[in-house]
Amino acid sequence: MTMNETTAGVTVPVEVSNRHVHVSAGHLETLFGPGASLHQHRSISQTDQFAARETVTLIGPRGRVENVRLVGPVRSRTQVEVSQTDARQLGVSAPLRDSGDLDGSAGLTLAGPRGRVTLSHGVIVQRRHIHASPLDCQTYGLKPHSIVRLRIGGPRGLIFDQVLVKVDPSFVWRLHLDTDEANAAGVKPGDVAEVLP
Amino acid sequence: MTMNETTAGVTVPVEVSNRHVHVSAGHLETLFGPGASLHQHRSISQTDQFAARETVTLIGPRGRVENVRLVGPVRSRTQVEVSQTDARQLGVSAPLRDSGDLDGSAGLTLAGPRGRVTLSHGVIVQRRHIHASPLDCQTYGLKPHSIVRLRIGGPRGLIFDQVLVKVDPSFVWRLHLDTDEANAAGVKPGDVAEVLP
Repeated sequence: MTMNETTAGVTVPVEVSNRHVHVSAGHLETLFGPGASLHQHRSISQTDQFAARETVTLIGPRGRVENVRLVGPVRSRTQVEVSQTDARQLGVSAPLRDSGDLDGSAGLTLAGPRGRVTLSHGVIVQRRHIHASPLDCQTYGLKPHSIVRLRIGGPRGLIFDQVLVKVDPSFVWRLHLDTDEANAAGVKPGDVAEVLP
Repeated sequence: MTMNETTAGVTVPVEVSNRHVHVSAGHLETLFGPGASLHQHRSISQTDQFAARETVTLIGPRGRVENVRLVGPVRSRTQVEVSQTDARQLGVSAPLRDSGDLDGSAGLTLAGPRGRVTLSHGVIVQRRHIHASPLDCQTYGLKPHSIVRLRIGGPRGLIFDQVLVKVDPSFVWRLHLDTDEANAAGVKPGDVAEVLP
């Protein structure tokens, strides 16, 4: 068995993405009223984004999920990211997708304090991924848009295959899992994952 | 790298355990009334057990989960098996445990049509495991109570470490995952997992 010396022993902090909504400017006004804007609740590791104070309710044919946080700034298209557990509770068939790949994805109704938006598509389960800068890729020997494997230890230890390397100069070195994935691996705050050669 | 020829290429059908409750005879009567018994809703792969028609509501300090199925027959002690997602929604700290290992586990209130039971302990997240007969162990070269690794393929492919081999003459050859684990792996009906050497 050969080892890739570049990635041997490389670790990445694990972050858990709870269900959230990236909202368009038009939908934001429908949900929160004319002239509405997003207000920062807290910063998140990817420095161009923030968790907003504003929350909405997701309403599907089978159920609803309340207090779902918006993530700012506004985007050109509304995107709802849920776990498969959420999708089942809502009764929607959210496909596994990369962010932004929304054509033919699931629909849903969003309810805000001032109005509702019914989406014909935009609801996805996001594929697990690493955020990396070009320098991170160079340092750790990773190819942009490649698929890598990561190990998480502990009593629910596992190895995630199919982890997409997403690269942008603004990105901060992090593994992003959804709540199902994080729970399956028993992830605790401060945990890191090992990038496998 | 050496291969263990005995287990190479061995697969096991995957089954997903949704949240459920094994109930004691005394608690069954409290929840469903004097003289209550469990009625079979459907059989399950482990042939000495069955999913009952009877359901209860789980009530925790933060939230509740309705329509949680009882699994029969009655046991000596009530045991509630939830996912980590469920535990968070309920607001309880359910530990990762093997079935039956309940001391110091989380508490919860169960509500049935005729009464309520408040458990001081008995709520766990069950450790992932394989059910195997002694003959399965012999055939596939597995040691009872050993820990094995299993691979699941597909777009959310992963390798589960820390899979306990549970052995009993009544057991049917199956991998049991909870809903978080199954969703994290993108498990679909009919999927199998590969036992890794």
